Amino acid sequence: MIIKIDRKRFVNTMKTQAKIGATENNGLHRLALSDDDREIRDWFYEQMDDEGLDIRIDEFGNMFGRREGRNPEKGIILLGSHLDSQPYGGKFDGALGVIAALEFIRTLNDEEIETEHPVEIVNWTNEEGSRYQPAMQGSGVWASNHDLEEEYDKTDEDGNRLEDELERIGYKGDVPATPTENYDGYFELHIEQGPYLEKNDMNVGIVTGIVGFTWGAITFYGDADHTGPTPMHYRSDALVGAADVITQIRRIANSLGERTVGSTGFIDVQPNSINIIPGEVTFTWGFRDQSDEIVEDAFERVLAEAEMAAEREGLGWEWEERMRASSVDFAERNIAAIEDATENLGYDAMRIFSGAGHDATHVADVMDTSMVFAVSENGKSHSEEEYTSWDDCYMAANTLANATLELAMED
Amino acid sequence: MIIKIDRKRFVNTMKTQAKIGATENNGLHRLALSDDDREIRDWFYEQMDDEGLDIRIDEFGNMFGRREGRNPEKGIILLGSHLDSQPYGGKFDGALGVIAALEFIRTLNDEEIETEHPVEIVNWTNEEGSRYQPAMQGSGVWASNHDLEEEYDKTDEDGNRLEDELERIGYKGDVPATPTENYDGYFELHIEQGPYLEKNDMNVGIVTGIVGFTWGAITFYGDADHTGPTPMHYRSDALVGAADVITQIRRIANSLGERTVGSTGFIDVQPNSINIIPGEVTFTWGFRDQSDEIVEDAFERVLAEAEMAAEREGLGWEWEERMRASSVDFAERNIAAIEDATENLGYDAMRIFSGAGHDATHVADVMDTSMVFAVSENGKSHSEEEYTSWDDCYMAANTLANATLELAMED
Repeated sequence: MIIKIDRKRFVNTMKTQAKIGATENNGLHRLALSDDDREIRDWFYEQMDDEGLDIRIDEFGNMFGRREGRNPEKGIILLGSHLDSQPYGGKFDGALGVIAALEFIRTLNDEEIETEHPVEIVNWTNEEGSRYQPAMQGSGVWASNHDLEEEYDKTDEDGNRLEDELERIGYKGDVPATPTENYDGYFELHIEQGPYLEKNDMNVGIVTGIVGFTWGAITFYGDADHTGPTPMHYRSDALVGAADVITQIRRIANSLGERTVGSTGFIDVQPNSINIIPGEVTFTWGFRDQSDEIVEDAFERVLAEAEMAAEREGLGWEWEERMRASSVDFAERNIAAIEDATENLGYDAMRIFSGAGHDATHVADVMDTSMVFAVSENGKSHSEEEYTSWDDCYMAANTLANATLELAMED
Repeated sequence: MIIKIDRKRFVNTMKTQAKIGATENNGLHRLALSDDDREIRDWFYEQMDDEGLDIRIDEFGNMFGRREGRNPEKGIILLGSHLDSQPYGGKFDGALGVIAALEFIRTLNDEEIETEHPVEIVNWTNEEGSRYQPAMQGSGVWASNHDLEEEYDKTDEDGNRLEDELERIGYKGDVPATPTENYDGYFELHIEQGPYLEKNDMNVGIVTGIVGFTWGAITFYGDADHTGPTPMHYRSDALVGAADVITQIRRIANSLGERTVGSTGFIDVQPNSINIIPGEVTFTWGFRDQSDEIVEDAFERVLAEAEMAAEREGLGWEWEERMRASSVDFAERNIAAIEDATENLGYDAMRIFSGAGHDATHVADVMDTSMVFAVSENGKSHSEEEYTSWDDCYMAANTLANATLELAMED
């Protein structure tokens, strides 16, 4: 059986969700647990309710909607993604996977298809990790990879506790944030966020795994001093040290593996005044690769570079690794179901390794998992310029629907 | 005639002024036109009033207090500095020069000395340039080096207009901000802010001039993108470009002159998130040297480096020079008066070129000018660690008093 979702309704639903938190430049600014997040959640709740789903909100705000199967004892086939966005991000990232999951349910209802397994759709809390760290927080708690109470205590830049914000927007649910049901498989549709599908003229990507990564921060302590009368050889300039290491982060990434990536995304300079030598600078590193060994190597090299830069400039320093994730290999069973779907639908598809982390990273610890990638024009994401054509969205959503259906129909 | 100020009263007055805007770490946070600036101005007004000075506030907030001379037609001998501070700066910078000037007046009054020339003390508005740029703003307007209306329209980071803030704190006076009186000479006492006096075991410095400098900012425009799935060769990382140039700024300074200095004090990264490649980075340059040719050379080299960095990384870019000052040579007549004072007082003194700009830079365009430097421990300034011993403050204040008196007594 091949199903196709209603293209027009799907596109309209995508446009509707994109209005909540819309930016002037056609992007999305819908930070986790913000008022906009509440609004999109309320809207999503209503859509699930309209489709007759049995809705559960867990104590970390993850939202589930269950459609019963012929055999309620069979393991649930779960699908979904996240509705939060990066600051001034795009309207496809995350949302596409949730809307495609919703559209799959609508199609099952329209066509009165009874699946063997129960099917559940999900919106994970705070995938982006920009307001509260770490990223993929809701799925991480759910998969017991993070401690619930510890994550509750996280604060944003304004000091707002996460648990308080969950309560404020009305999404601290009463179901434990852990797999209380019997789950069998997970699918997540997401934009690629890279250029490989487009470069290879593919319609969709069959994701076989996710890169590992290390995220961390280095702080250099120098001497804040007047930029004029302080001779160069007296200076301990924390920003000169940071610039050294940022340059090396680029070189480390370029020297390790074919697809190793590395960058500094964040920097904070104190006192940050044109006329004062920077006395304290904190900046981040991030490295990713398919190989956990290369990630470890990059981590060791950036610390070695920081030590040398501190030595050269006469700086005190400290570092903190904020997150480390091993690379993930997805389940062959799910990968095969996606491959079947693309073949049956006649779409050009290729296997691809994900360069970004996703909620699927954590869910893969709980059940068989794989992902569908939609084409990202120019590989752009986490930016208002992020773009996937409606054709590409539609093909990816149909792939998700048919792969999910295959597992949901298994005896 | 040698005069000596009252050490105890002087030290107590220094301590009193340092309470207004005091920081936890024994420093000073007294930004121009803030509530704390109003408070220190009110206090200073009262002190001048107590000494019977004829007080004028000009339309840019510069505060003058005149003590009449035997011959009111003779040119005024002016002395002073500024009472504002850097963010979390020190309690000596600027304030020492104003308090020493006040103490000079008190000593004349105590000893009932009648000078030939009128003597005037001054507190210049916004010397620091941290809240409103440029630095040395009040003296610059007064010397007609800046346009009054243009400076009135400057805004701080929160969008507050300078003129509005002047009115708010009650210091937009009614006297034109220009030398309306007949002036003959200017002295300014300031901490050295460099290590040379201490290194040479000197008590005070006789300042013969001020370095020239260039200040400006470069903005790089790259592509904000997800740090994970974007291949390295697709990236245009604005922060990598900035790090390149920041490293070169250090090298340019080290390669040009013996005492050339250069640094980046400020950087702003957008969107500044650990997981997004920096799409836009603005950072500053600052170079100083005694030679205007070397300053020009540094300016040209930093732009050449920026062009190369932009080319390498595929960045758009633009630049803006925010300030350029030629080096200043002080008047031999004033320098000689300071030298006489140190000899008569028996202080160890050396001639020194100032590595920082001061209000004296602008005043030198109007009248014969020179400066007295007090020792700065470890050369530290613009920082809470800034320190000058009371002994060193006292010797510098006595030098200022006697040099001023020499000119004020001239027939």
